[in-house]
Amino acid sequence: MTIKSLEELFHETLKDLYFAEKKLVKTLPGMVKKAVSPRLKEAIQDHLSETEGHVTRLEEVFAMLDKKPSAKKCEAIEGLVMEADEVFAEIEDAETLDAAIISSAQTVEHYEIARYGTLVCWARQLGMDDVEAVLHKTLDEEKAADQRLSGLAEEYVNQKAAA
Amino acid sequence: MTIKSLEELFHETLKDLYFAEKKLVKTLPGMVKKAVSPRLKEAIQDHLSETEGHVTRLEEVFAMLDKKPSAKKCEAIEGLVMEADEVFAEIEDAETLDAAIISSAQTVEHYEIARYGTLVCWARQLGMDDVEAVLHKTLDEEKAADQRLSGLAEEYVNQKAAA
Repeated sequence: MTIKSLEELFHETLKDLYFAEKKLVKTLPGMVKKAVSPRLKEAIQDHLSETEGHVTRLEEVFAMLDKKPSAKKCEAIEGLVMEADEVFAEIEDAETLDAAIISSAQTVEHYEIARYGTLVCWARQLGMDDVEAVLHKTLDEEKAADQRLSGLAEEYVNQKAAA
Repeated sequence: MTIKSLEELFHETLKDLYFAEKKLVKTLPGMVKKAVSPRLKEAIQDHLSETEGHVTRLEEVFAMLDKKPSAKKCEAIEGLVMEADEVFAEIEDAETLDAAIISSAQTVEHYEIARYGTLVCWARQLGMDDVEAVLHKTLDEEKAADQRLSGLAEEYVNQKAAA
């Protein structure tokens, strides 16, 4: 693979994110199961539904670019998920596990916020207004999911874990 | 390793971040070399100096907790850096490479923003005000570095890459 333009880099990054979102569709159910707090379970379950929508939106973007949806192994999401699994396996206390689940989920949210933020800027630069609008919806949902997790952590999860 | 409390999880996460910051001290010089735009080179060089300071601050935090500084392999930063290297190797156009460098650096910044954000909240919950203050300084610098990169991208880097 050789990348010679911003447009090609945009397309490669789209494939990376398509891999990441599909990986998360498989990974989030495990986090729902592991979480102890019902509100945390619900938040991750809701984000799983959103994530399925993000996969569909990326497929729409591929179609808008007249490309077939294709995934390219995303080393970043592999590392983030591996790190999360390692930490979860080490934790014996249920409340501490909830705090760790929020923390790990937020590292994933931030990866996506960075990537979608970049793709939105590149789409704007490339004059792809429709693509920009679709990606912006997902960016907003990733930011909202991150905020919701912060809210749960500060409201009661961290307090319970520290008790 | 078994984690039984938020305090122990805090300590483990500190080791993860210590590994990540030390890895970045080794990784950022390569990005300075690769970058074409002098202002981008300067921004990464400045952030390298800050990153050296972040390593020192983490050592201060270990000392405040009466712990020896120790690093624990951070799979996330390994994945983020591997992904960045893979993309850089594929790019043949110098202006597109600058856009990719900003994009990859921002995924790293966002990882750190997520991790320091969590550690600041946990330190507050655990009543470690001095530790919270030290980590907050780094959190602010990571956010500022991310903003500076966004500024360069929007000001001229993306435009040059799209030309």
